[in-house]
Amino acid sequence: MPLARLSKQAGKDLIASVTAVLFDCDGVIWHPQGPIDGAAQLLESLRNMGKKVIFVTNNNTKSITQLGEKFKKFGIKAEEDEIFGTARVAAVYLKHVLKCDKKTYLIGSQGIAEELHNVGIESTPVGPCILPGENSEEIAKRVDLRIDKDIGAVLVGFDEHISFQKIAFAMTHLKNPETHFIATNTDGQFPMGDGTYIPGTGVMVKAVMTASERDPIIMGKPEQPMLDAIRAIHDIEPSRTLMVGDRLDTDIAFGRRWGMKTLAVLSGVASLEQLEKVQSEDKEH
Amino acid sequence: MPLARLSKQAGKDLIASVTAVLFDCDGVIWHPQGPIDGAAQLLESLRNMGKKVIFVTNNNTKSITQLGEKFKKFGIKAEEDEIFGTARVAAVYLKHVLKCDKKTYLIGSQGIAEELHNVGIESTPVGPCILPGENSEEIAKRVDLRIDKDIGAVLVGFDEHISFQKIAFAMTHLKNPETHFIATNTDGQFPMGDGTYIPGTGVMVKAVMTASERDPIIMGKPEQPMLDAIRAIHDIEPSRTLMVGDRLDTDIAFGRRWGMKTLAVLSGVASLEQLEKVQSEDKEH
Repeated sequence: MPLARLSKQAGKDLIASVTAVLFDCDGVIWHPQGPIDGAAQLLESLRNMGKKVIFVTNNNTKSITQLGEKFKKFGIKAEEDEIFGTARVAAVYLKHVLKCDKKTYLIGSQGIAEELHNVGIESTPVGPCILPGENSEEIAKRVDLRIDKDIGAVLVGFDEHISFQKIAFAMTHLKNPETHFIATNTDGQFPMGDGTYIPGTGVMVKAVMTASERDPIIMGKPEQPMLDAIRAIHDIEPSRTLMVGDRLDTDIAFGRRWGMKTLAVLSGVASLEQLEKVQSEDKEH
Repeated sequence: MPLARLSKQAGKDLIASVTAVLFDCDGVIWHPQGPIDGAAQLLESLRNMGKKVIFVTNNNTKSITQLGEKFKKFGIKAEEDEIFGTARVAAVYLKHVLKCDKKTYLIGSQGIAEELHNVGIESTPVGPCILPGENSEEIAKRVDLRIDKDIGAVLVGFDEHISFQKIAFAMTHLKNPETHFIATNTDGQFPMGDGTYIPGTGVMVKAVMTASERDPIIMGKPEQPMLDAIRAIHDIEPSRTLMVGDRLDTDIAFGRRWGMKTLAVLSGVASLEQLEKVQSEDKEH
């Protein structure tokens, strides 16, 4: 389907053609400042029309329970089994797909540690910061670069305390080809909702990829583990599913790759300029 | 020239065929623990044979003066104009090629700040660490994401104090397409000389690239600014020059790209296995 700006009638037709609508959250349902105007009403209308509503976020800092609390706080109805976040997907993937019961070295946040704990996987505590004024040789002496044989996986998510030391510890363990390397998602930027951005999880993931010279298995949109996680619970038919998102490289790519209809909104990362660029590239090929 | 393991006679023939020998330093001349056995004698022999000896390092943490002191400490003769490091190359490039006199936001170390100062460019002081326990929303509130209009360039080198905050500050300034983006080099790993590795400058560079969605101009091997810097001082003829290094993607790529002879040593990053892999790929193409 070529990109087109949606008229009111085209919007109605699009909704009529699907049975399920998948929504990204950051930049679509909410901004850091609060819910996006009209989101709650739109979701309620869709539910009243009998559409299945599912929330699919690459957010990895919150457990499903914590995401559920956020919906509640913002006055938006969402059952826990309608919410898919990459912290939960990563934990389930490690446990049930890779069958890895060993300790996980986690570059990430408490939300992921909680989901790992929920499936019975122990994660290592986060290391201390580099001391101010220390140089690389001093750090290397102090950072213990010996392999902890109990670690079976390195999992990278969003970590605002990313450090040289954490990257060094991860790369050292990834020298062992049997150590699994999982990343929750690769979004490079996180929109603050006021036109500014902060670094996204992709920044931490690329840092570890570069140091280790390894590619991770990626859990989030547009990759398959997220789709598998949704389909393990919900019987969705991609051709009758609409994916709504604000990022071309994750949300819209996810919908397109797996045969869904897609709708890009301008409330988050993507600009109209970017969309028009993609549209003209579509025409060229 | 196909890859070949060097016999004693082939080594003599190779040296006889060149007038200048370019040496990488880390993993070739020295390790963090000290000079590599036999390096000083080899260099002295080359000088006695009338060969020009030049040191070409992607190291960016030391100014040329600091690198000169390191050679002296290790008992290896080296004049300052024979030493090329990416801290100096970056400062000269900003000043004389880009003609950028504005402030530089530096993710890097004191050695680069010193070289910037030497050419009259002010660099911003390094920001404070993220406070333990702070989450991304608190950090974003505290990190001043407003543009400092005096900043004309972002320069990324090796920084063992790399932080979320520094990456956020860099990406915010790189939103302005007029802000120059320079990286000293992209080596992803730094060998400690005992079989272990720590993250290299490429890790910090990839982090800022991912956050900013911009590609930097790279100063070090295998890129052109390093070659231009050497040729501004030394009259070398690439076909009669030998590049000796331990990294395929920087040292050997540098020599090959600019028409030099190349010699890979196994005292640093590259393993015999990697070299044989490259050799078999060479045969396939």
